[in-house]
Amino acid sequence: MRAVRLHDYHQKVTIEEVPEPTISGPLDVIVKIGGAGVCRTDLHILEGQWAEAMAPALPYTLGHENAGWVHEVGSAVTNVQVGDTVILHPTPTCGLCRACRGGQDMHCENSTFPGLSGDGGMAEYLLTSARACVKLDSGTRPEDVAALADAGITAYHAVRKALPLLYPGTTCVLIGAGGLGHIGIQCLSALTATNIVVVDRNREALDLAEKLGAHHTVLADGGQVAAVQEMTGGHGADVVLDFVAEQGAENDGFTMTRAGGSYYVIGYGGCLTVPTLDIISTERNIVGNIVGTYNELAELMVLAQTGRVTLHTSTYPLDAAAEALADLDAGKVRGRAILVP
Amino acid sequence: MRAVRLHDYHQKVTIEEVPEPTISGPLDVIVKIGGAGVCRTDLHILEGQWAEAMAPALPYTLGHENAGWVHEVGSAVTNVQVGDTVILHPTPTCGLCRACRGGQDMHCENSTFPGLSGDGGMAEYLLTSARACVKLDSGTRPEDVAALADAGITAYHAVRKALPLLYPGTTCVLIGAGGLGHIGIQCLSALTATNIVVVDRNREALDLAEKLGAHHTVLADGGQVAAVQEMTGGHGADVVLDFVAEQGAENDGFTMTRAGGSYYVIGYGGCLTVPTLDIISTERNIVGNIVGTYNELAELMVLAQTGRVTLHTSTYPLDAAAEALADLDAGKVRGRAILVP
Amino acid sequence: MRAVRLHDYHQKVTIEEVPEPTISGPLDVIVKIGGAGVCRTDLHILEGQWAEAMAPALPYTLGHENAGWVHEVGSAVTNVQVGDTVILHPTPTCGLCRACRGGQDMHCENSTFPGLSGDGGMAEYLLTSARACVKLDSGTRPEDVAALADAGITAYHAVRKALPLLYPGTTCVLIGAGGLGHIGIQCLSALTATNIVVVDRNREALDLAEKLGAHHTVLADGGQVAAVQEMTGGHGADVVLDFVAEQGAENDGFTMTRAGGSYYVIGYGGCLTVPTLDIISTERNIVGNIVGTYNELAELMVLAQTGRVTLHTSTYPLDAAAEALADLDAGKVRGRAILVP
Amino acid sequence: MRAVRLHDYHQKVTIEEVPEPTISGPLDVIVKIGGAGVCRTDLHILEGQWAEAMAPALPYTLGHENAGWVHEVGSAVTNVQVGDTVILHPTPTCGLCRACRGGQDMHCENSTFPGLSGDGGMAEYLLTSARACVKLDSGTRPEDVAALADAGITAYHAVRKALPLLYPGTTCVLIGAGGLGHIGIQCLSALTATNIVVVDRNREALDLAEKLGAHHTVLADGGQVAAVQEMTGGHGADVVLDFVAEQGAENDGFTMTRAGGSYYVIGYGGCLTVPTLDIISTERNIVGNIVGTYNELAELMVLAQTGRVTLHTSTYPLDAAAEALADLDAGKVRGRAILVP
Repeated sequence: MRAVRLHDYHQKVTIEEVPEPTISGPLDVIVKIGGAGVCRTDLHILEGQWAEAMAPALPYTLGHENAGWVHEVGSAVTNVQVGDTVILHPTPTCGLCRACRGGQDMHCENSTFPGLSGDGGMAEYLLTSARACVKLDSGTRPEDVAALADAGITAYHAVRKALPLLYPGTTCVLIGAGGLGHIGIQCLSALTATNIVVVDRNREALDLAEKLGAHHTVLADGGQVAAVQEMTGGHGADVVLDFVAEQGAENDGFTMTRAGGSYYVIGYGGCLTVPTLDIISTERNIVGNIVGTYNELAELMVLAQTGRVTLHTSTYPLDAAAEALADLDAGKVRGRAILVP
Repeated sequence: MRAVRLHDYHQKVTIEEVPEPTISGPLDVIVKIGGAGVCRTDLHILEGQWAEAMAPALPYTLGHENAGWVHEVGSAVTNVQVGDTVILHPTPTCGLCRACRGGQDMHCENSTFPGLSGDGGMAEYLLTSARACVKLDSGTRPEDVAALADAGITAYHAVRKALPLLYPGTTCVLIGAGGLGHIGIQCLSALTATNIVVVDRNREALDLAEKLGAHHTVLADGGQVAAVQEMTGGHGADVVLDFVAEQGAENDGFTMTRAGGSYYVIGYGGCLTVPTLDIISTERNIVGNIVGTYNELAELMVLAQTGRVTLHTSTYPLDAAAEALADLDAGKVRGRAILVP
Repeated sequence: MRAVRLHDYHQKVTIEEVPEPTISGPLDVIVKIGGAGVCRTDLHILEGQWAEAMAPALPYTLGHENAGWVHEVGSAVTNVQVGDTVILHPTPTCGLCRACRGGQDMHCENSTFPGLSGDGGMAEYLLTSARACVKLDSGTRPEDVAALADAGITAYHAVRKALPLLYPGTTCVLIGAGGLGHIGIQCLSALTATNIVVVDRNREALDLAEKLGAHHTVLADGGQVAAVQEMTGGHGADVVLDFVAEQGAENDGFTMTRAGGSYYVIGYGGCLTVPTLDIISTERNIVGNIVGTYNELAELMVLAQTGRVTLHTSTYPLDAAAEALADLDAGKVRGRAILVP
Repeated sequence: MRAVRLHDYHQKVTIEEVPEPTISGPLDVIVKIGGAGVCRTDLHILEGQWAEAMAPALPYTLGHENAGWVHEVGSAVTNVQVGDTVILHPTPTCGLCRACRGGQDMHCENSTFPGLSGDGGMAEYLLTSARACVKLDSGTRPEDVAALADAGITAYHAVRKALPLLYPGTTCVLIGAGGLGHIGIQCLSALTATNIVVVDRNREALDLAEKLGAHHTVLADGGQVAAVQEMTGGHGADVVLDFVAEQGAENDGFTMTRAGGSYYVIGYGGCLTVPTLDIISTERNIVGNIVGTYNELAELMVLAQTGRVTLHTSTYPLDAAAEALADLDAGKVRGRAILVP
């Protein structure tokens, strides 16, 4: 089959023939890929940033945002059947550790990360596990939803955790209306009546944010903290969802948070520096967020299938993977790039 | 009446005659003081550290940890009567703002802070409000419980917030077994079956911690992070309660926290510096804590009156306030110093 | 002033001149009424159903759903000023008991209930308390929102309690799309992405329900339990909100609830009869609901002022109170009847 | 191997030779039984009460409270190894349905119930699943903990759900200090500082309750509701845990519950009859409870292994199963009867 392979860091990917995966374990599932998202993390992989943490054996196949159709199943698989349309949780889990037993998939002690730790979904077929498969309506086109498998679940997870804090009359600031952020805005709009304020450096991103449900937008031109303070009567926002969390956004985000409020870190790359006096005197919280649970992905798919969350995508044939990655790197991709084998 | 007065920063307090307070508002309450705690914050006040934030008009009377008996009440007071034994919430609140209406006394938009923002309880009488009064069993001696009014409520508030995370099988690290911390240990012991690990620089403090319920103690001699990691199978603690949060404890505390866990900041003085990648990749939380609610003080008094939380105190006559402060500064006070008028 | 007076049970109300109320306590507030809702409970009062429980001294003034403008305030009132537009929480509370201190207004040990326990708001002026006043935008017309003061807050309270159970993919059955229920539908629609199924005996009520956000409607013609089971794959609904809870709806409601689900009782009049085996074998919950908190009323007003919850009302002059009550009794009122002095 | 077989309802069990179970699925586990609890449910099974609901093919082996040592494992089992000491969750679950994915084992759509729906653990060996195995310290004697597998987990589950309501100053009434209840008392004592009031018809059970942590006991001689009302200042208990829920206890239990409080149904057999007016006017909740989650069983084992929950047991050899059942039926068993093969 055709696959997008990484032979070495700091090199372009190659598209080449590799053997199709085969079932070996009882819970194995092989999925025929219908769409594989191209993510900024893929660029970071090429740069070697994940080499140490994930330590994949080179060469391997990229692709960690995948949807398609079940092609073959192991002997103990009961939740999906050959032919089912599925979206895949990014980290197949063991199902037996305490985190898995509590539904906390992202804290599984034995999970893998296809596309980062081993062969991913930028290929015709992907080997995954029954526990990663979320079954979809048969009419769903995998290429339309693939990006929800990682970007979507992460945004949804953060919003869902914040829901109890976002009752009517509150203000939620969302920093960064990009790939994850524009899903976050739609989740906020679907699930709360909070006042949604979106902060971004890019005017076009803010225009999109307004169409997706933002009540107010703030251009991050240096005056964003003051703007949020002014909008909130000097108090700050009840919740700040920071999809950037680098280049100063992280300290802005904490500063914009009101006394008793919570600052959610979703993006990364920066460094938070806060005197403990500022934390205790205002009783603010800093909340870490990573990819969500299996059930959260299933919930997000309900929002997608009922039209409450939609993705802007640009599709590329699988053989154009290098071009898609280059376009992403050059800022030329509108919405999310999706490879379609 | 006699009162402990601050005439200027960087000077000793004086004990002198001042007029007794009088009732002017309908919810005013005058309390005859039975015990007033001497707190490290009083030393910070003398050093001028609170001058800007609280801006009291000098001279004024110190004392923010108070208990005694109701002496006189305003026309609309219905919750206490003259003669009742009471402990006082440290910040009388308005009862009308949204925070008060939700029970979040510490976020009241109109609260005062007797002993910091104006006349406190190191005196024969204190003017406070009906909303600050928690009624006690008539047999309670105010001097025995006064320190729970501020140190106690703060420790209890943090422990109570952490309770849902502290189910059997978890580990809770408590950093700093001093004035607040030794109450925190007792609260943990009374309200959870978590594995309690206490970290302190002082061997005597650790000995006391063991008597109060700590299951393990760790001397903070530089190897404390490694010791906690080892005790927890390399994972770190589910919850870290940091009563120090300065001089490096704050970054140790975050480091000791396991993936998915929460680090509670209660002490202050230091500066937390954390890459956002470390926050998101492990999904850890940083939780701010300040003094608790009125109801929490009432709950803590149940623990005190049933013997589940006890205080180690050294009493001084009111006229010996300067001596008590000097002893505290010199590290000579065993337990909490309490002034008894 | 003119007021709607009840002289004896089983008699018509009379509209007559009574003295205006006067301020006596420091937290008293006199409100010039702009709108007073006419509620089915008023009919029950006339029938004497509340005589024993509330024991008002006759004659007295009816009216427990009130909004207007602040006319005069007591000496300690700080949250509203003369001229402010306000809606009134139905039960002025003491602010000092443990329930009040925890924000649980409906469990205040010392609350009153104007319009049931004493003079209410079907009059030109009403005596209430600072703690009952929720300040509104000055442009709000009291007659447009008055019905939210009791019907609205009750529906909102139940929906808000159920929110954590109503994630995407769940089904919520709402029984009874009348005065309270039609507000409940709008709250569900504003605050969740649950699948909203409305059950009512009245086809017109179901038509309105669809306009307000119901995704499915079921005519309660005897087949409603089977219809809900079929819609939910035989499982039942995750949450059932029962605004009827009499004449069999209560047992239907519990039966429609899925294993692990929750049945919310909001209406009343019937009798729930359930074998304990049915409760435990399916681990279902039965949740009581009464009027909400002050903060919930404030939150609901945000939904109203941003157009997410709207009321259908028919206004009557104050002097036409008897006619409004007769129309309500005869089923002739479209939406909610509101008296405007 | 030897096994306790049920050939027909209303007949005595027989102890006979049957083939040992064999591994067929990849997650299968065979456990050498070290202790199998004898439960009142076994008597109900003999009476045919579970024949319809569970529909086991006769003859089959009884025993749903099991602990022992892993004897053999399927190809995909990774959480336990041959030789491990284990206690078994009573309902092996699929691990793939939405309930399992959320940690709600008791709502698994595909679980089995060994001992009720098919062969159980009153035998030398039991076939179960990896997902049922909770690994214990190697020094634990299975016969000492077996009864926690069903009775224990059920009591713990109810207590754990109630914990947020049981802060200091509250009162918890526990009805029925028998097999489950005496574990519930110990859980309350280990995990809360609530005021524990135990109600039972049996004076000896109350004596044991006091030793296990009850602060007050009430003999259920007809005056129990009045006694609880008096103890709670006429308010009723914040939480009632009803381990009886038949013969009137269920309606007593609800009546004893204070306004805003919650009544937990754990026992069964009776019928709850409550006017909906009583539910809403006081905003009380009725909470269903069934066996707990895998993680809860693991947590309970921490309490057991640290001595905070202990069981009173009487052991019988496997061949004396009929005698053990007869003793239980005759009320002659002190504590819990345990079969030891």
